[in-house]
Amino acid sequence: MHASAPLPVRQIGFGDLSDAVLVREVPVEMPISVEVGGIGYAVMMATPADLEDYAVGFALSEGLVERAAEIERVDVQPLEGGIALRLWLAPEQSRRALDRARRRVGESSCGLCGLENIEEVLRPLPRITARLETDRHAVAKALAALADHQPLGRATGAAHAAAFCSAAGDIRCVREDVGRHNALDKLLGALARGGVDAASGFILLSARCSYELVEKTVRAGCPMLVTISAPTSLAAERAAAAGLTLLALARADSALLICGEPDL
Amino acid sequence: MHASAPLPVRQIGFGDLSDAVLVREVPVEMPISVEVGGIGYAVMMATPADLEDYAVGFALSEGLVERAAEIERVDVQPLEGGIALRLWLAPEQSRRALDRARRRVGESSCGLCGLENIEEVLRPLPRITARLETDRHAVAKALAALADHQPLGRATGAAHAAAFCSAAGDIRCVREDVGRHNALDKLLGALARGGVDAASGFILLSARCSYELVEKTVRAGCPMLVTISAPTSLAAERAAAAGLTLLALARADSALLICGEPDL
Repeated sequence: MHASAPLPVRQIGFGDLSDAVLVREVPVEMPISVEVGGIGYAVMMATPADLEDYAVGFALSEGLVERAAEIERVDVQPLEGGIALRLWLAPEQSRRALDRARRRVGESSCGLCGLENIEEVLRPLPRITARLETDRHAVAKALAALADHQPLGRATGAAHAAAFCSAAGDIRCVREDVGRHNALDKLLGALARGGVDAASGFILLSARCSYELVEKTVRAGCPMLVTISAPTSLAAERAAAAGLTLLALARADSALLICGEPDL
Repeated sequence: MHASAPLPVRQIGFGDLSDAVLVREVPVEMPISVEVGGIGYAVMMATPADLEDYAVGFALSEGLVERAAEIERVDVQPLEGGIALRLWLAPEQSRRALDRARRRVGESSCGLCGLENIEEVLRPLPRITARLETDRHAVAKALAALADHQPLGRATGAAHAAAFCSAAGDIRCVREDVGRHNALDKLLGALARGGVDAASGFILLSARCSYELVEKTVRAGCPMLVTISAPTSLAAERAAAAGLTLLALARADSALLICGEPDL
């Protein structure tokens, strides 16, 4: 399975530029059928790379498990037109997940579909208690290094990256996907599988900061999130309420501190 | 209700740039509870503007109705923490929608959540039969004019726009939202409410072209889609199979013809 695929295209010039036939790399987007204990749970669209990480991150973000160790096995099975991602959980978690699948509540990485009321969507987040000894120079360092860790982004110009960075700003782990929620789920899964405490560093995302990305970061116990693009109103509110330090519009020369640690 | 909100932030300079306290406009993202015939159908996150258009576009994209006229009334009701969007359908459509809500299949603007198997996700699209007499100069004209039609995008730097353009490249209607699927649903709803035939022009999107945007365009009967950013592999495949003319990476000097009409 490849994360990108070559696509022959025709460049259409509007003025002086001549037409040309080119081959462009595009990110692969594919249906991933997530099954829990042999029962279909959800179909997600994702890039078929790092799928074991995705499985673990998805299970954690969905609240199917609380720790990676509660997942006994992940099978990745290519199918016609997509991939089945089969999770086998410890008996107690498996029962809970199947109950949930039967009730069909909350099946999606955006955390929303099936939640039929607004209070449920906006249920309180845990409060971040970890503090991170870091500073703006660490943020600038990680930002400057990010492009070198985005092979899919470089090849296609159309993939999101989620990076976990040490307090000193060294990039420790990066995952990419055509969807920003997937990239973050893959990263969180990789950290959990590697036994890395998400409280020991910060997360850097190439994406716009919608509220789900704030929620996933907070639930993973990571105290700081840096995004390249702007936050939504709800992302800013939720981050402030949870005590997350949120930086947005992070550029080469500056970033905006949306909420949190003022002495960065 | 406002589409954007002022957010006080602190600019953190990395080098020579001094710190500063600024007020930044951010796009409003809010839970929208979609109800059909008084029953909760889905909760979507969207920008609270043009919600009647959104209701109609959502109902069309979800296949709850086939024509705007099948929607008898839309009520927009502000709630604590969100908005209820109440759709009242003609009796036959209402019965069908409630059956569907009960079975909890396919509730999301991404078109996926709850669809538990891959064949269902990749079910064949209708074939585009309409042909559009247009050319590359019309595309370039619409592209050049788009920024002037994006007040939310200009204010926040973080909103997507979906525009409907005449064959000559004149922008006829634009809708904006923090989510690209929502922006397109709002546009399709506005066209349906205004009695505009989507086959009479092309759609221009400020976003990356994921397969759902191709599907919504095809289902609306529009023969051509132009996106500013790159397509995914699946978007390209689905567009080709449906006979959609797809242009991507549309820039000031050129665009890439992914599939369709070669003599543009």
